[in-house]
Amino acid sequence: MASKQSTVNHTQRMKIGDFLLRRLEEAGIRHLFGLPGDYNLTLLQQLYDAGKLTWIGTTGELTASYAADGYARLNGLGALLVTNGVGALSALNGVAGSCAEHVPVICISGSIPLRSIDRGLGMHHTMADGGFDHFLHAYSHVTAAQARITPRNAVVEIDRLILTAWREKLPVYMEFPSDIAYLDIEVPTTPLVLADPPSDPERLRSCIAAVAERLSAAKSPAVLVDADADRFGVAPMLMELAEKMRAPVAVINAAKGVIDESFAHYVGIYGGKSSEPGVRETIENSDCLLAVGYRPIEVTTGDFTASLPVNTIHARGHSIDVGNDNYQAVTLKEVLHGVIDAVRQVNKRTPRAVAAAAPSTRADDTAKLTQATYWQAIQGYLRPGDVLYVDNGTSFSLLGLKLPPKCTFIGSINWGSIGYSVGALLGALTAAPDRRHLLLIGDGSFQVTAQELSTILRHDHKPVISLINNGGYTIERGYIGKTETYNDIANWSYADLPKVLRPGTRARSFVVKTGGDLKKALGTANDRLIFIESMMDSCDAPAPILRSSNLGAELDYGPTGPQHRAGLQLRPTTAETRV
Amino acid sequence: MASKQSTVNHTQRMKIGDFLLRRLEEAGIRHLFGLPGDYNLTLLQQLYDAGKLTWIGTTGELTASYAADGYARLNGLGALLVTNGVGALSALNGVAGSCAEHVPVICISGSIPLRSIDRGLGMHHTMADGGFDHFLHAYSHVTAAQARITPRNAVVEIDRLILTAWREKLPVYMEFPSDIAYLDIEVPTTPLVLADPPSDPERLRSCIAAVAERLSAAKSPAVLVDADADRFGVAPMLMELAEKMRAPVAVINAAKGVIDESFAHYVGIYGGKSSEPGVRETIENSDCLLAVGYRPIEVTTGDFTASLPVNTIHARGHSIDVGNDNYQAVTLKEVLHGVIDAVRQVNKRTPRAVAAAAPSTRADDTAKLTQATYWQAIQGYLRPGDVLYVDNGTSFSLLGLKLPPKCTFIGSINWGSIGYSVGALLGALTAAPDRRHLLLIGDGSFQVTAQELSTILRHDHKPVISLINNGGYTIERGYIGKTETYNDIANWSYADLPKVLRPGTRARSFVVKTGGDLKKALGTANDRLIFIESMMDSCDAPAPILRSSNLGAELDYGPTGPQHRAGLQLRPTTAETRV
Repeated sequence: MASKQSTVNHTQRMKIGDFLLRRLEEAGIRHLFGLPGDYNLTLLQQLYDAGKLTWIGTTGELTASYAADGYARLNGLGALLVTNGVGALSALNGVAGSCAEHVPVICISGSIPLRSIDRGLGMHHTMADGGFDHFLHAYSHVTAAQARITPRNAVVEIDRLILTAWREKLPVYMEFPSDIAYLDIEVPTTPLVLADPPSDPERLRSCIAAVAERLSAAKSPAVLVDADADRFGVAPMLMELAEKMRAPVAVINAAKGVIDESFAHYVGIYGGKSSEPGVRETIENSDCLLAVGYRPIEVTTGDFTASLPVNTIHARGHSIDVGNDNYQAVTLKEVLHGVIDAVRQVNKRTPRAVAAAAPSTRADDTAKLTQATYWQAIQGYLRPGDVLYVDNGTSFSLLGLKLPPKCTFIGSINWGSIGYSVGALLGALTAAPDRRHLLLIGDGSFQVTAQELSTILRHDHKPVISLINNGGYTIERGYIGKTETYNDIANWSYADLPKVLRPGTRARSFVVKTGGDLKKALGTANDRLIFIESMMDSCDAPAPILRSSNLGAELDYGPTGPQHRAGLQLRPTTAETRV
Repeated sequence: MASKQSTVNHTQRMKIGDFLLRRLEEAGIRHLFGLPGDYNLTLLQQLYDAGKLTWIGTTGELTASYAADGYARLNGLGALLVTNGVGALSALNGVAGSCAEHVPVICISGSIPLRSIDRGLGMHHTMADGGFDHFLHAYSHVTAAQARITPRNAVVEIDRLILTAWREKLPVYMEFPSDIAYLDIEVPTTPLVLADPPSDPERLRSCIAAVAERLSAAKSPAVLVDADADRFGVAPMLMELAEKMRAPVAVINAAKGVIDESFAHYVGIYGGKSSEPGVRETIENSDCLLAVGYRPIEVTTGDFTASLPVNTIHARGHSIDVGNDNYQAVTLKEVLHGVIDAVRQVNKRTPRAVAAAAPSTRADDTAKLTQATYWQAIQGYLRPGDVLYVDNGTSFSLLGLKLPPKCTFIGSINWGSIGYSVGALLGALTAAPDRRHLLLIGDGSFQVTAQELSTILRHDHKPVISLINNGGYTIERGYIGKTETYNDIANWSYADLPKVLRPGTRARSFVVKTGGDLKKALGTANDRLIFIESMMDSCDAPAPILRSSNLGAELDYGPTGPQHRAGLQLRPTTAETRV
């Protein structure tokens, strides 16, 4: 991946703001999300004057950060522009989510002028307490790098932050004082190259040899994929490797869709006891497991019942663990490239049969819509190339569906901030407007960020938004509070929202009460935004969701907790529990 | 303020969650705002089982933090309950605002179980990176105190956090692990007493003497009030002192309404060159100014043109500066109490005449609504006892209106986070449902937090919400971008929102295009929620707002900024500039 740059340092003069925008563009960023504020207007004006990046104004900064995250997942890098303090902190949860989910996002805060810092002047959008570094400090806990840009450090820091985000697949935070945008500095003429430093040749050779040797010697090699395989762009290489070795590949639920589910060696989702038995056996009994970016948490491991073989090779973006050896100064891409060449070709292992999707049972189209009918209809609706979003709640059921080829899954399994998907949808629509985008979301999640629908409508995007209206946080009812009102939310006329947020919109809205209604709604053409509100019972929830919540309650509340009190916890019906 | 507590330490056994809820109740908190999450459900269940506090579920955590802030401003203390990481960080901007605005708010995050921290287990809603203190650290930059509660520290830390919030008038942050709520500990039987430690007797005597002596000796004493006078509850004492000395009292714009504007000695808002000349002269030429909680920033000082006399006495909640002396271990209340007694009674100074409110000009009721007509109508609409809210933008014009007696002003002049007022409205409505509440907000601010209107409707509150629909961030157009689209927003059918967020609502909605329409809307009874959408031109802005923005641009962007480029900045008309 190393790329040779010219050793002659040609320079030119540029305004600092123009240089920042140039670097973003060189890094492949074409859109910037955020809100204007007096401290970032100078940069915005430069963006408008240059005419290269496109500004996507959002209704709030939290959704701007979600949008930048969604954009980065399809584009490789995303960015948002907010204003000092109020804007930066509103975006913090979203940027922290990018950190938890390993998504490279550049959060730029147009900040108070250097003049005010030099003079110690209190300003609006600050604590007015004499401190100027509070927000840099707050961000230091949820980003890989932070800096306040000055005329002295601009050339070094802008490149450092962009490169750090790209190399680490993590967010970074930049404060850009309002009074430096139009100052003239000397900058390199050479473009920014997104590349890793070249690997250490000896370490790379040794690492490739060690990995290939173990995999070649194994009788039952297997590959386990977490989200980093997507972030570091190695999913195609992993499939190539698996193909050559005839080795089964499983994913963690956080990596749903990272391996094409129509791939011959794909076996399904591994998560300890929550996995399908065959998948569990394949992974846990492998005599050489290659685990890529594996980060176990309770919801990806069937509440810590996952158990990887002792001889697992742990591969990360920039380091590999093989037995007692920890290889540094290598990149995953270079290692995999070498391993694919070096590993022994296998022809005789036959692919494991994947459990077939449950046969669709014929439902009564006039019956009240249930979760079971709903997910069966959604399964039938998926088509190759879709971008699929899942927000927290019963919508997690998407994880159990079989995805057609070339689908992209956008979710937030580790961070799990409700409402994330609406902002992410805006961002990913912006990055890939020509794909079909399908958002699966519940009412509770939707209420957090509902207004960003207005930006999606404003730009004439045409996603399908499928909302479950079941009166609140059903997934929480599986922890405790089955019928307690703290899990209830206000009931909105969700389907009426598009026309309020975009008067005169041609969006199609549906309120769905039966399986027949849903079929009809899903049968309409994708030439406009489709908004489907599906009415379901607040205590109707898929068994896997409830089992996960019930187990989670044990873990969260311990033996003295109230989860065993009669009737306090929503549980699967006896019939479902047996499945 | 010191209160003697029993020296006998009686104890009893309680569940930790019950003890926390008991302490909140003893501290005068009756409502808790927030969202349920698996990590806080145990505490929520205890709240429901105890039946003393009322849960007010909000649509998101940012608005929960704004609601707790609004509640605290009327109630003296407010609290919110969120969930680990995602909830806590979403609330950070609001809690930081409470820090900037000096509002005592207790942010409780139901957090991951101690079990997981002990075992080093990754959990959802975390970074899954082995660190468990990221959010405590992030909060440490915007709160006065932070702690993670354990069975060992619960008794000490819960009291420390609540008392710190109340004494410092600043927010605090508490992580409350999900697995400790139902654990049994030994707690004091004595209730928590909200009190300051008693003052140092000598320091208090000397301080009172020094302040009283200077004020008594002065020929033109005056009082300048910032928001801390409200937070520390000394506004009535300051009026008593001013009455006895016949001394004029001015406020900083951030303290609008803290001194009753019908008070005989109230002279108006002081902010350097932005003040009415008589007010400026009164403050700057005083030979002994008592300044309470004065925190100068650009927007409270007419862009740093404020200049207090050298012999100003600076009084804070817990310390006083008199000449070279800095008095510690005193409370402002005790000092003022003593000073009122000790200061020389004056009978001969006559109150300064306050500039009368501009006579209302007779407007043509059929003419297109303008900002001028709008604010004149709002002035006429105000009545004694109103709670008035202003969000950022042209709505700042409320600062220029004359408030009737006993009004409360709720704004965020230092922090200035757009959308704050919608959440604050929910909170203050909850604290004082029987007062009339009038929210003045622009479309750009409203879009950030619009969905919290659903919670206001859900609880059948009856505020008046007066929204200016002028197509975007007009206040920013006064910086730069007069007609640039980055200052535009999507146009909503705002007045249709109540019926979408609360189907079947009896709320009255109006779309107002003329002065006559507005009169009619304002003439309806306050027996239901009233939502008024007033259509105005995007470049119609009150001159004081534009002057402030224009000056702000000089300060923010410096001499090389683009603000002087032809047509890039919205400016007052020549006629207005002369006023």
